[in-house]
Amino acid sequence: MSDKALVVLSGGQDSTTCLYWAIDRFGVDNVSSVTFDYGQRHRIELICASEVADFVGVPNVVLPIDTFSALGGDALTEPGIEVANATGRESGLPNTFVPGRNLIFLTFAAAYAYQRDIIHLVTGVAQTDYSGYPDCREETMQSLQATLRNGMESEIQIHTPLMHLSKKATVQLADALGALPAMAMTHTCYNGERPPCGTCPACELRAKGFAEAGVVDPLMLNS
Amino acid sequence: MSDKALVVLSGGQDSTTCLYWAIDRFGVDNVSSVTFDYGQRHRIELICASEVADFVGVPNVVLPIDTFSALGGDALTEPGIEVANATGRESGLPNTFVPGRNLIFLTFAAAYAYQRDIIHLVTGVAQTDYSGYPDCREETMQSLQATLRNGMESEIQIHTPLMHLSKKATVQLADALGALPAMAMTHTCYNGERPPCGTCPACELRAKGFAEAGVVDPLMLNS
Repeated sequence: MSDKALVVLSGGQDSTTCLYWAIDRFGVDNVSSVTFDYGQRHRIELICASEVADFVGVPNVVLPIDTFSALGGDALTEPGIEVANATGRESGLPNTFVPGRNLIFLTFAAAYAYQRDIIHLVTGVAQTDYSGYPDCREETMQSLQATLRNGMESEIQIHTPLMHLSKKATVQLADALGALPAMAMTHTCYNGERPPCGTCPACELRAKGFAEAGVVDPLMLNS
Repeated sequence: MSDKALVVLSGGQDSTTCLYWAIDRFGVDNVSSVTFDYGQRHRIELICASEVADFVGVPNVVLPIDTFSALGGDALTEPGIEVANATGRESGLPNTFVPGRNLIFLTFAAAYAYQRDIIHLVTGVAQTDYSGYPDCREETMQSLQATLRNGMESEIQIHTPLMHLSKKATVQLADALGALPAMAMTHTCYNGERPPCGTCPACELRAKGFAEAGVVDPLMLNS
């Protein structure tokens, strides 16, 4: 059984914590990372992911996905759409919802892993603060794992170390894993600002987590 | 409940039969089609899909997927790799296996459908002649449907009208649905030849189906 692991690294706080989790569990030599260039409006995320991977010493491959931009209609890939908490969509999901985004990321990651004899996929999705994103739920991840195993005849395992953690607990985990220095390189702000805007939902959630954990966010020290 | 349906149209015999099936079931005004430009070595497939859609009078949208080419390593997207029935891969799968290809196609189709209030997806996958492709099996499709419903909070339904049909039965179905004229516009040959090479596994399977059904393949009349 291979002990190789592939971390889906977005350049954010959660996936960076997962990268440290994977290194702790599988050993740094067994870990690599994949980042998706899917037309996100904040290109800084790609730089952050690369910087974090370099910092911890694992390979980082960037895979392009041009399809989401072609689909259109969400605030994370279309520059003309404002990020909002609520939306006019009948579904009630926030307009940062890219339908099936995590399903696509993990399926491509599984395809990449398949070709390299990697069976462990690690992703930072969490349902605790899931903000209306159904593709972050444990039930979805379990169903996806079954689908990938069926569809690729593989023994792929999706690991979701943050699934049931609050943001506070995620910060505490990052601290315990020695991940805090890398947090200075991560990106969270929905508005793409650096230093972070501090007022968008993503910034507020991040600040709340660090505050509740009683830990200073290294990103804010740099601001 | 919406009666709108989206057919994944590859430009081949099976998906064209599914297009007619969908029109028969949902009505031509409720049907649209999506074709994926994923870097397939035979660009003729895209032209065939467009011609078939035009011929039957349904919209056809082409969505790009540049990710498979970036993954590399399979005979359907890499010009340097010969198509083979057997391969040195440990999995024993043919080297035309693009890991997770149908999972990706249907997930993107579901995302496209989600944004357009379409709940019926129709795909020509079949496990009868599945040739070692695990992403064509009924179990995989059922699992994927559950994953898409969970991950998008949708009522998506994946229809696989050819799942348990032999190639003979698929030809008979096409005949019954009046789909034969459109078959002259379809593409099957793995070697991308037009007229078809007649000797690759895909050509042989197609010829066998028409022969067993006692139907002349309109594509061969044009050759």
